Amino acid sequence: MITSGEYLKRLRSMKPNVYMYGEKVEVPVDHPQLRTNFEAIAVTYDMPLDPKYQDLMTIISPVTGKRVNRYNHPYQSNDDLLKKVDMIRTMISETGCPCVCRCVGSDALSTIGITSYDVDKAFGTNYYQRFLDYLKYFQENDLTAAGAVTDARGDRSLRPHQQPDPDLYVHVAEKRKDGIVVRGAKTCITNAAMCDELVVIPGRGLTEKDADYAVAFAVPADTKGIVQLAVAKSPARECKMENPIARRFAFSDSIVIFDDVFVPWEKVFLCGEWQFGGGMGALFGNFHRLSHCGCIPGRGDLLVGVTSLVAKYNGVRNKGHVVSKLVDLITSAETVYACGITAAFKGVGTPSGIYAPAVIYSNTGKLIESENTTAMITPVADICGGILCTIPSEADYFSPNTQDYMKKYLKGAVDVDAEDRIKAIHLAADLTITRNAAAGAAAEVMGAGSPEAQRRAIHSDYDFEKREALAKRLANIET
Amino acid sequence: MITSGEYLKRLRSMKPNVYMYGEKVEVPVDHPQLRTNFEAIAVTYDMPLDPKYQDLMTIISPVTGKRVNRYNHPYQSNDDLLKKVDMIRTMISETGCPCVCRCVGSDALSTIGITSYDVDKAFGTNYYQRFLDYLKYFQENDLTAAGAVTDARGDRSLRPHQQPDPDLYVHVAEKRKDGIVVRGAKTCITNAAMCDELVVIPGRGLTEKDADYAVAFAVPADTKGIVQLAVAKSPARECKMENPIARRFAFSDSIVIFDDVFVPWEKVFLCGEWQFGGGMGALFGNFHRLSHCGCIPGRGDLLVGVTSLVAKYNGVRNKGHVVSKLVDLITSAETVYACGITAAFKGVGTPSGIYAPAVIYSNTGKLIESENTTAMITPVADICGGILCTIPSEADYFSPNTQDYMKKYLKGAVDVDAEDRIKAIHLAADLTITRNAAAGAAAEVMGAGSPEAQRRAIHSDYDFEKREALAKRLANIET
Amino acid sequence: MITSGEYLKRLRSMKPNVYMYGEKVEVPVDHPQLRTNFEAIAVTYDMPLDPKYQDLMTIISPVTGKRVNRYNHPYQSNDDLLKKVDMIRTMISETGCPCVCRCVGSDALSTIGITSYDVDKAFGTNYYQRFLDYLKYFQENDLTAAGAVTDARGDRSLRPHQQPDPDLYVHVAEKRKDGIVVRGAKTCITNAAMCDELVVIPGRGLTEKDADYAVAFAVPADTKGIVQLAVAKSPARECKMENPIARRFAFSDSIVIFDDVFVPWEKVFLCGEWQFGGGMGALFGNFHRLSHCGCIPGRGDLLVGVTSLVAKYNGVRNKGHVVSKLVDLITSAETVYACGITAAFKGVGTPSGIYAPAVIYSNTGKLIESENTTAMITPVADICGGILCTIPSEADYFSPNTQDYMKKYLKGAVDVDAEDRIKAIHLAADLTITRNAAAGAAAEVMGAGSPEAQRRAIHSDYDFEKREALAKRLANIET
Amino acid sequence: MITSGEYLKRLRSMKPNVYMYGEKVEVPVDHPQLRTNFEAIAVTYDMPLDPKYQDLMTIISPVTGKRVNRYNHPYQSNDDLLKKVDMIRTMISETGCPCVCRCVGSDALSTIGITSYDVDKAFGTNYYQRFLDYLKYFQENDLTAAGAVTDARGDRSLRPHQQPDPDLYVHVAEKRKDGIVVRGAKTCITNAAMCDELVVIPGRGLTEKDADYAVAFAVPADTKGIVQLAVAKSPARECKMENPIARRFAFSDSIVIFDDVFVPWEKVFLCGEWQFGGGMGALFGNFHRLSHCGCIPGRGDLLVGVTSLVAKYNGVRNKGHVVSKLVDLITSAETVYACGITAAFKGVGTPSGIYAPAVIYSNTGKLIESENTTAMITPVADICGGILCTIPSEADYFSPNTQDYMKKYLKGAVDVDAEDRIKAIHLAADLTITRNAAAGAAAEVMGAGSPEAQRRAIHSDYDFEKREALAKRLANIET
Repeated sequence: MITSGEYLKRLRSMKPNVYMYGEKVEVPVDHPQLRTNFEAIAVTYDMPLDPKYQDLMTIISPVTGKRVNRYNHPYQSNDDLLKKVDMIRTMISETGCPCVCRCVGSDALSTIGITSYDVDKAFGTNYYQRFLDYLKYFQENDLTAAGAVTDARGDRSLRPHQQPDPDLYVHVAEKRKDGIVVRGAKTCITNAAMCDELVVIPGRGLTEKDADYAVAFAVPADTKGIVQLAVAKSPARECKMENPIARRFAFSDSIVIFDDVFVPWEKVFLCGEWQFGGGMGALFGNFHRLSHCGCIPGRGDLLVGVTSLVAKYNGVRNKGHVVSKLVDLITSAETVYACGITAAFKGVGTPSGIYAPAVIYSNTGKLIESENTTAMITPVADICGGILCTIPSEADYFSPNTQDYMKKYLKGAVDVDAEDRIKAIHLAADLTITRNAAAGAAAEVMGAGSPEAQRRAIHSDYDFEKREALAKRLANIET
Repeated sequence: MITSGEYLKRLRSMKPNVYMYGEKVEVPVDHPQLRTNFEAIAVTYDMPLDPKYQDLMTIISPVTGKRVNRYNHPYQSNDDLLKKVDMIRTMISETGCPCVCRCVGSDALSTIGITSYDVDKAFGTNYYQRFLDYLKYFQENDLTAAGAVTDARGDRSLRPHQQPDPDLYVHVAEKRKDGIVVRGAKTCITNAAMCDELVVIPGRGLTEKDADYAVAFAVPADTKGIVQLAVAKSPARECKMENPIARRFAFSDSIVIFDDVFVPWEKVFLCGEWQFGGGMGALFGNFHRLSHCGCIPGRGDLLVGVTSLVAKYNGVRNKGHVVSKLVDLITSAETVYACGITAAFKGVGTPSGIYAPAVIYSNTGKLIESENTTAMITPVADICGGILCTIPSEADYFSPNTQDYMKKYLKGAVDVDAEDRIKAIHLAADLTITRNAAAGAAAEVMGAGSPEAQRRAIHSDYDFEKREALAKRLANIET
Repeated sequence: MITSGEYLKRLRSMKPNVYMYGEKVEVPVDHPQLRTNFEAIAVTYDMPLDPKYQDLMTIISPVTGKRVNRYNHPYQSNDDLLKKVDMIRTMISETGCPCVCRCVGSDALSTIGITSYDVDKAFGTNYYQRFLDYLKYFQENDLTAAGAVTDARGDRSLRPHQQPDPDLYVHVAEKRKDGIVVRGAKTCITNAAMCDELVVIPGRGLTEKDADYAVAFAVPADTKGIVQLAVAKSPARECKMENPIARRFAFSDSIVIFDDVFVPWEKVFLCGEWQFGGGMGALFGNFHRLSHCGCIPGRGDLLVGVTSLVAKYNGVRNKGHVVSKLVDLITSAETVYACGITAAFKGVGTPSGIYAPAVIYSNTGKLIESENTTAMITPVADICGGILCTIPSEADYFSPNTQDYMKKYLKGAVDVDAEDRIKAIHLAADLTITRNAAAGAAAEVMGAGSPEAQRRAIHSDYDFEKREALAKRLANIET
Repeated sequence: MITSGEYLKRLRSMKPNVYMYGEKVEVPVDHPQLRTNFEAIAVTYDMPLDPKYQDLMTIISPVTGKRVNRYNHPYQSNDDLLKKVDMIRTMISETGCPCVCRCVGSDALSTIGITSYDVDKAFGTNYYQRFLDYLKYFQENDLTAAGAVTDARGDRSLRPHQQPDPDLYVHVAEKRKDGIVVRGAKTCITNAAMCDELVVIPGRGLTEKDADYAVAFAVPADTKGIVQLAVAKSPARECKMENPIARRFAFSDSIVIFDDVFVPWEKVFLCGEWQFGGGMGALFGNFHRLSHCGCIPGRGDLLVGVTSLVAKYNGVRNKGHVVSKLVDLITSAETVYACGITAAFKGVGTPSGIYAPAVIYSNTGKLIESENTTAMITPVADICGGILCTIPSEADYFSPNTQDYMKKYLKGAVDVDAEDRIKAIHLAADLTITRNAAAGAAAEVMGAGSPEAQRRAIHSDYDFEKREALAKRLANIET
């Protein structure tokens, strides 16, 4: 396990091909708007080194026999699944960052672990051993991967092979003796600008004609032929009081273009076995929805905390409707958490030995998140009041022209310093209405798959036959 | 452990003072409308004897050293809490009964177990030993108790001692050498007409002036001075196809009047220690809300089962909106279950050794149930169609005058027998719109306490300080 | 206009072929469970004769030149539409009956009025004159019709002509010189057992192969060949305190079988013009959804009234959460009403001169009702408390054995008589959990068409092009 | 009536004391971030001059006898109220601006009109004539006012006179022969930086001890002693494709400090009559909630338009779940509109002759908006997909380095230009997740008063007595 300082050094030594605002970004980690993304990941390197978090955030790897970051450890038990939820919740609630960026790649790795095993069984391939070798390398170097799942997709009503432009889904453009050449693009790839590796899997069900699109692999993020168009969530300007979260911790997303990228066979984990395309998407969804069951409660901790604080600062903390709205926030967050805990507690081992969450609960948790996260803004705005949206800038606060006015007129409850109230309001804003917050909330709708994907997963996993049999017996219907 | 047949015999040997429709019911268990209540409890006697359910529904008692019904075993571990949720879910989904009636008394017992221990520590009393003795007797005889918590209450804005009529809350009317005399009434007491024992605890917070109302005790249900006014949920007439649930399994409720009832000291578990009144109500609420986290998912199993079945019978099972509404039903039920599992998984031991569920999750589960159960009727009605409310009676079906019309015109999908469809619709009705079903759904709103009680419990248990501290640190507010 | 007494006499003179519980009901209006249906309609005869309601409930007919019941007057203006909503709301809130039964036939008549005019224009037929003649006869005799729209339907995934049994949709079995012979069945036909006439229209879209199913007509309810299987909502036994609504006012539903029924040409309003089948269903839906926008607010008036009353009787009327839940009930009801008023205010004239409600608003109102009515039970149960579901029977109240107990222990706030509280609770029950209430609430989900039908109507009527143009202009997209 | 050009000229001639980012803004209308606010108001000057909108947006004033902007015309009829809703909806849907800024001042004026009349009747004052004189001046000059209602408020649990700092509510600091001197601050004052006049009214109920806080008046925005701290919603940098709304139309908010501002008696409309303080707040709330019933539907038009468009561009427009979510958006918006139309249609005349909306419906509309607006982001994000939050910047699009990648990989449905899709996504973002959009959505929660204020208004206006009487009659309870 390495420190965030070592990680920083490693990132600086890489030469990824990242563009932002139409310009090449030479050293992404030193770009002020991307640096915040690094800071978010830094937390995933440094907290596990704190003895207080050792049990929660690290584990002795059965692969290397050494202590590794829990993010880099495919789940081997229900306890592993449970700790993942709590680890994510803790990191989110400590940083306020909507995403600490390390779970996507981790979830893609677990997906490859399970599938490579199953493909080997079905087709006599040897992907699983490649996976184990790669995992060992990954753990030993304490790597961070971005998971690349969602293709460009073009016309969503057409399958990959039906698209006029074959590159709208990532595919094998050429098979060579020593590896494959891939082409296409993945979109909405969180943290691609700040990672060691890209772990790529198919994002949807495939037919035989889509066989070229059945490809999973890993590559260093600065491999030749990869181009990224990155977009940052951090504010473009420096600030001292505003954006208390986003000025420190944020995430970025990239469109990652594979412009004929060579991947050696030892890092290819699926190549042509189209029967497993949909399954990988579903598995990844299951893992990543569990991860979301940790991050929304972490965000909830802060939403409740800051709202309770502002209510105090406003002198209305004990009003009945304030209490009721705080309880609404709590139950919104804790319901998602309860689904995560249950998904983990009822998770099941796969033939590979890797544990997967119980589908009904990981998906129910994520579906509640999908359909409810933007609504959580309402009670915060309600209790903070209009000032949440209309507070003058920090420059007004720091200017001798205007500071006295702000101190006098933004004062709240008798014993509360106006500055504290202003700071709390800026935090509430950075959890609800700043670009970082608003994009973060909207991203919860689609992150880990759309609400419709969750509905399909629940419908397909649920044992209707069992429930229909219960009903038939009670209704006295012969089967 | 005894069989339901032995339980039936025992009930027949008792002489409780039960009135229904203004008349004395000599042998309640033989009254056709109350018999269904017995049948619901019978399930709690017979299923545990089935080896298939032994692990789930029984346990070796640390008190008696013998195998006992899990209902009669105060939780000693998280596993006990978890199994309770699954046991209840299983029984509800097998019978369709909104309540199998045995958990209330059991939850009241656990409440007494914890509190008696704490009171002894605080005041040097010896209630806990009395509790253990009673528990041993209870387990050895495989008894069923009704839990009596909710007082008559009169004017809800007044405390017990402020009521013009002192009897509106159960209280100690007289203390004797050998025991106490209690007076008052408890309302909404499920299963009182069909139980061995009544276990009585205070239902609300008390002040010093309410000390006489701080009383907990147990008495046989046919103790002198106890009068019950019972109300049944079963249909008053016999039926063969209609009310497939309620004609077999139902629950009853009683107003239980204590008209100067003597209780010997060995069955008195609280007497005057008003400081513990509110705590007992809260503890009972916590236990009983966990129980609800099992029963709504059981009801959900049947709602989903029958709705999926009718959708097939109607030929629309695969329509997008049908799938979406089934998923709504599933997530409504499974969210409550997830809260229950999480409450159990995170339950904590009390000084008495008895485990209590994690308050946030038992209450969130129950709150979701409270606020959502009647809404679950909507997708069922939607998918079944108007015929759910307009289907002719079973007498029409069995009459030669009309049967052919019903067979011809209530036919659904091509390969489905009209009779099966009719039966399924009657089941759907008995889960939604019969008196049994409608009262059952409405009862979920208030059972185990009102939504407001759950909100207060969540608000009081939640660690706001911790979340405010997280917010302050991020907002850079000095504490 | 006639009195309800005259209507009673007319019903007694008819010989409809009605079965209930498998037996022929010789004089339906004298059957105790159907009599309540008559009483609901009686209100529609008697209130309009009260000068206080003359303006709201009657109008000078442009057809007869005489004052007629507003129910029998196809809308000629927005004011007519507006008054219909208020008329229905008033009648529902005065009686508590979920349905006063006269609007369905009225809505079917308006549908025929518009369509017959359009069909004549398209095909040179003369249906419209037949309609006018029939309307005149209808108004002059102050008739009541049941509207028969929903067919038996068999497999819902098949069109009428695809069903193995051709009779699962009502169709023309034979065309004669003097009329047609129809066969099939309509289900869920409210008030068929208590009406003068049956007005029959197609219930769904049709293709050319379904031409025989494109048939609209009117017949006296006791025409030869018509058989009804009726189901009543009233309680089967007499009561004095319980079922305060359903023991006086209720509605019934019938399956109406047309077993080769002859209809003379002058009462045939569509015969083979399959192109208009779907349009009639949509028009009827539009009219009848407007009617629903009146009845839910009427039910809301009573739900709010009784809940506010019980809250007072319980001594908690001014608690914050009680106020909030009352406001929830109010806004649930008034939102539907607002949609109705807007649908009426923005209604538009059709070529026939008959006004139709604005589709977006009638459907939005009904959709809110569909998706929200069962949820309205929750705040009522919450505020009334568990006693709503557990109150002993009225027989207990009237028995000398038990009355004193009920008077003593069901007393609420200090100055409230226990009997008043008991009566109020029985009313609340008869608006939520009695069979009448529960079936009434569930019926709102599907009455006037399923939620999905409303969604389709909204989607098809909404001007997306206009909104997309607004978006394109702002986004600077060339069209 | 003047043009926006003339208005621009007038604004340039004023010298308001506006600060932003801690610096004095010499000519606010020329500040790039405030200029967008002017552009929003400009629409209210120019559209009414278009003959197409003359009837909707202008009227012959009964005060001046000349045609005036409808914004400056206190409602004299239900038709006036109805047209206001449609006027606002039209302007919002044309510009996409969350607020076109002219209604607040207008609503404050109507409030003064009604109250001044009533105060004169009660106390023999002559405020109403002052109001008429001011109104005439206002109309003749086609002025724009900001309405200043919400005080700084300090500790929300204390009344104005109880605050340690008396200036936390605006109050009369001195009464002179020729006028009054006022001190204090109003917060969240939309459009204060871009208006001719400030119209100030009390924002809450007052007691006798708060008499100094009972003050209503109007002053030119650049009156000596007024200081504003403004905050803009427009992006700080120029853009060509991003922020398609906010780069053109936006609103600003100010804290407006009255640092001993002199107001001549002829512009004082309340001074010490504390009994009318709460009433003015309630009246303003009623008017302004009606205004909101126009603006949410206007926003809804664009949300539906852009979402439908992106769904087409993605090739999924006809999927069942997309249709269903579009209908959710439509009904969310149209329900608010229906409440507005009903509030207007049922509005009632006051003694002053000014019409006020029906309180139940204006408040229900606003309450639905308050509790639902942030939730409307979810279906938009769902249908647009993750790219809504992760689309690269416009600079990437315009750069030769990266444009080809964006054109290739952000292509959607076959016949759709990638650039159009990118533009549509930027519009969707500017309606949901840009700072302008997110603050706009959150502002809907509190604009025109908090949800709790709406609940109180509904509860206090609703005729419970009438509904309780209906319930009592049906329950057979003697009154």
